[in-house]
Amino acid sequence: MEHQQSEAIYRRALEVLPGGISRNTIFRKPFPNYVEAARGCKITDVEGVTRIDFANNMASLIHGHSFQPVVEAVTEQITKGTAYTMASAIEVAYAELLCHRVPGFDKIRFMNSGTEAVMAMIKAARAFTGRPKIAKAEGAYHGTYDYAEVSQTAAPANWGSIDHPNSTPVVQGTPQGVLNDVVVFPFNDIERTLAILDRQAGEIACVLVDPVPHRVGLLQAHSEFIEALYHWTRKNGALLVFDEVVTFRVHYTGAQEKYPIRPDLTALGKIIGGGFPVGALAGHADVMQMLDPRESPLRFPHSGTFSANPVTMTAGFVAMSHFDQEAVLKINAITQKAKDQIAEAAALAGVPLSITGAGSMFRMHFRSTPPQTYREAYQPKERAAVMNAFIDHLYYQGKILTTNTCSCMFSTAITQTEVDQLTEAMLNGFRALKGEILAAANE
Amino acid sequence: MEHQQSEAIYRRALEVLPGGISRNTIFRKPFPNYVEAARGCKITDVEGVTRIDFANNMASLIHGHSFQPVVEAVTEQITKGTAYTMASAIEVAYAELLCHRVPGFDKIRFMNSGTEAVMAMIKAARAFTGRPKIAKAEGAYHGTYDYAEVSQTAAPANWGSIDHPNSTPVVQGTPQGVLNDVVVFPFNDIERTLAILDRQAGEIACVLVDPVPHRVGLLQAHSEFIEALYHWTRKNGALLVFDEVVTFRVHYTGAQEKYPIRPDLTALGKIIGGGFPVGALAGHADVMQMLDPRESPLRFPHSGTFSANPVTMTAGFVAMSHFDQEAVLKINAITQKAKDQIAEAAALAGVPLSITGAGSMFRMHFRSTPPQTYREAYQPKERAAVMNAFIDHLYYQGKILTTNTCSCMFSTAITQTEVDQLTEAMLNGFRALKGEILAAANE
Repeated sequence: MEHQQSEAIYRRALEVLPGGISRNTIFRKPFPNYVEAARGCKITDVEGVTRIDFANNMASLIHGHSFQPVVEAVTEQITKGTAYTMASAIEVAYAELLCHRVPGFDKIRFMNSGTEAVMAMIKAARAFTGRPKIAKAEGAYHGTYDYAEVSQTAAPANWGSIDHPNSTPVVQGTPQGVLNDVVVFPFNDIERTLAILDRQAGEIACVLVDPVPHRVGLLQAHSEFIEALYHWTRKNGALLVFDEVVTFRVHYTGAQEKYPIRPDLTALGKIIGGGFPVGALAGHADVMQMLDPRESPLRFPHSGTFSANPVTMTAGFVAMSHFDQEAVLKINAITQKAKDQIAEAAALAGVPLSITGAGSMFRMHFRSTPPQTYREAYQPKERAAVMNAFIDHLYYQGKILTTNTCSCMFSTAITQTEVDQLTEAMLNGFRALKGEILAAANE
Repeated sequence: MEHQQSEAIYRRALEVLPGGISRNTIFRKPFPNYVEAARGCKITDVEGVTRIDFANNMASLIHGHSFQPVVEAVTEQITKGTAYTMASAIEVAYAELLCHRVPGFDKIRFMNSGTEAVMAMIKAARAFTGRPKIAKAEGAYHGTYDYAEVSQTAAPANWGSIDHPNSTPVVQGTPQGVLNDVVVFPFNDIERTLAILDRQAGEIACVLVDPVPHRVGLLQAHSEFIEALYHWTRKNGALLVFDEVVTFRVHYTGAQEKYPIRPDLTALGKIIGGGFPVGALAGHADVMQMLDPRESPLRFPHSGTFSANPVTMTAGFVAMSHFDQEAVLKINAITQKAKDQIAEAAALAGVPLSITGAGSMFRMHFRSTPPQTYREAYQPKERAAVMNAFIDHLYYQGKILTTNTCSCMFSTAITQTEVDQLTEAMLNGFRALKGEILAAANE
C-alpha cells in the first residue's frame, strides 16, 4: 500500500488533533500525506512520492520551497537569535524595501499573520474614523477575525436578496453585534453596492476589498467598481482598505497597481514572509499614526510577541528582493502560458472550462463562461464533488498539488517543463471525468 | 557617543514605521538599541554593548537565545522547507508531546500567535455553548482581539464602581457591541465576581482567566477564586478557559497544575514556539470537536496559512522536550533565589519593595506589601515614571534587560553569576533612585 506510512501517522494524529489535522485547508480524505522534504517546485511525501507544487502553501511561497538565498540568510540569522525584546535593524531595512516599492505605503507595521493584519487594518480604520462598521464583499475570505469573515460562507439558504445580502456568521455563536456591524455588498456590482453603502453611510469606517478574492471565484475587481468605492469613501468620510494578503504577488506593487486610485490601507501577508509566519499593515501616514506609541492619547495600542522577528524579516527581505520587476513579469508570463495550454487541453477533451485569476494565480471553473459574481461562482455540493474528484485525480494520478479549490498559485521555480506536466495531468483528468464534468456543468 | 549607530537606524525607522518601532513593548526613549546578536542569556546591540536578558522576548524564550538543540534542528528543517499545503509528521509528534504532558489536553490546534489562540478559544466557547458573551478580569491582557482586550487599560477615570466595573475600550472606535458582550470582574474577588457573573448567567459562553496575569500586577489567582469560577461555570453551563500564553512556563503542566480543577480550554503561545511565532488551543475533546473538519455542520471552521508550520513545530518540540520536570524545578529555584537576593538588596538600600509572580517570573512593586488587586497595582503616571527611571537605570548602568514593567522572565540559561549581577544592578538602582522611590511609595 502506497500510503501506509501517512495513514499510520494520521491514525496517531486523530488522537491529538481535531480531525487529525492542524489546518482545514490541507484536509484530504481519507487522510493527508505527510511531507518528508520540499525543494523548489517539488514536494516529496514520506512514501517517497514527489509532486509538483502549484499550491505553494496557499500562495505564500513566491520562490517555492527551500529557496537557497533565504535558506542561507535565515541559517545565519538563527545563530544570532530568533526573537528579542529589542529592535533589530533588519525590520527597518525591510520596511524601507516595501515602503519604497509601493506608492501609498508611507509606513508599515509588521505582525504574525494575514488574520492579524486584517484585524489591525479594521481596528486602525475604526480608530481613525471613530466609526464602528465595516463593509465587505459577500463570499470574500479575509482571515478568521469575526468581522472580516462575515458572509464568507454565505449560501443560497441564508444569503438573502442580492439587493441587501444578509450578514451571515461563519462560526456558530458569533455575536449578533458582529453581524450588525458588518455591511455586506455584492462584489463588482456598482449600483447595488453603492445603494447598500448609502444606507449606512455615516457609520462605515472602511470598505474592505480583496481585489482578486479567491473564495468569490478569483474574479478580478473591475476598475470601475474600485473607482466607485474609492469615490464613495472620499465623499462619505470612510477609508478604502485592501486585503492584498494573497494578491500582493500579482504585480510588482500588488494588485492595486492596475487601478487609478490608491487604497488608504493595505493588509499584507503570505509571500512577504519568505516562507515564515507574517502579516503587515501598510498605508497612509495619517492613518498609520494611530499606531504611533508617542501619541497621547494613543488611539490604537498594538503589540505582538513575535511581530517583526528577525527571522521573518530576514526571509521576507531576501524573498522580496529577488521578486523584482523582471521576476514578476516572468512568473506572470509562464502562468499565462499555463492557462492557455490548459484551455487548449479542455477544448481538446471537450469539457467546458473557464479560468479566472490574475498574475501568477488562477482558478478553474467547469463552465464555458467565467462566473461574474460570487453567487454565480458558488458551487452546490454536487458540483463541488466533481471538482474535488478532479483535484484528487490531479493529486493521485498526475502527481500535481493544487489548493483545495483547484487554484494554482505559481512560484518562480516553475518552468515550462512543469507547465507541460500540469497540462498533461489536466488533460488526463478532463478525459477521465468528462461525464461527471458535463453533467455538473449542465446543472 | 555610545549609541550613535542605533540612533542612526532609528532615524531611518521613523520614516517607515509608526513611531519608528514594530512593537510598542520594545519602545524606549529617546530610541531603542538594535540587536546585533544574542546567545544564551546575553544580548549584544550594534554598539557592542552586551546586556543580560531577563525579558526573553516577553517571556517566550525558555532556554534563552540561540539554544543549540533548537538551532541544529531548525537549520536542518529549513533545508526541507518551511511551510507546505500538506501535513508534516512533526506537528503530530509535537501535539502528542503536549497532550501527553498536560491532563485535560485531549486535543490541540496550533496557530501563529497568542492573540490568535485566545481569539480561537473564545470562538470555540461561543460555538460550543451557542452564547455570545465572555467574562474577563479587569486589567488582564489577553492579546489584541477586541473582546479579549476590553478593560485591559481601565483607569480611575473610566473603570467605574468595583461592584460592576465598566467595559472600557482599549482602541478608539471599538464597537459598542464588543463592550456589551464582555463582562468585567475584579480579579481574585470571589464575592463581587460571582454577583457580576450571576447577573448575566445565561449569556456567558466562558469565563476567561490568566492564572498569573502580568498587567494585573503578576498576582497569582487564589485557589479559592479559581474553584469558585469553576463551580460557577459548571452550574451555569459556561466554560472555564485559561490564558496560559505567558504562564505555561511556571510549572511542568502550566500554572493550572497548582489548582484542584482543570480548565475546559487553554490558550498557549510564547515558550511553546521554541523562539518562533506560535499559538495553540488545547482542551477537552468535546469542545475541541467544534474544530473538526469532518463534522457537519462544522461549527467552527478555522484555518491559517502558517499554522503548525514545520519550523515552529520543530523548534517547539525540541525546546519543550528540554524543558522537562527537572529543568522546571531548576529554573524556578534560581528565580526564587533571585527574588530573595533582590528583597535583601531592597532592605539594605532602605526602599520599600514587594515582589509578585510565580515560577520563573516575577514583577516588582515599590511598596512594602504586595498589591492584592488590579486597582491597587495600578500605577498613576508619577509612580510609573519612577519605575521607568529604574528600568532605564538597570538598562543603561546595570546592563540588564527587563520587560517594560520591570518584570523578569527567566531562561534556563541564567546561572547564579547572572543572578548576582542582577542583584548588584538592582542594589545600585535602589540607591541611586531612593529619594524618588520613597516619594512615590508615599503617594
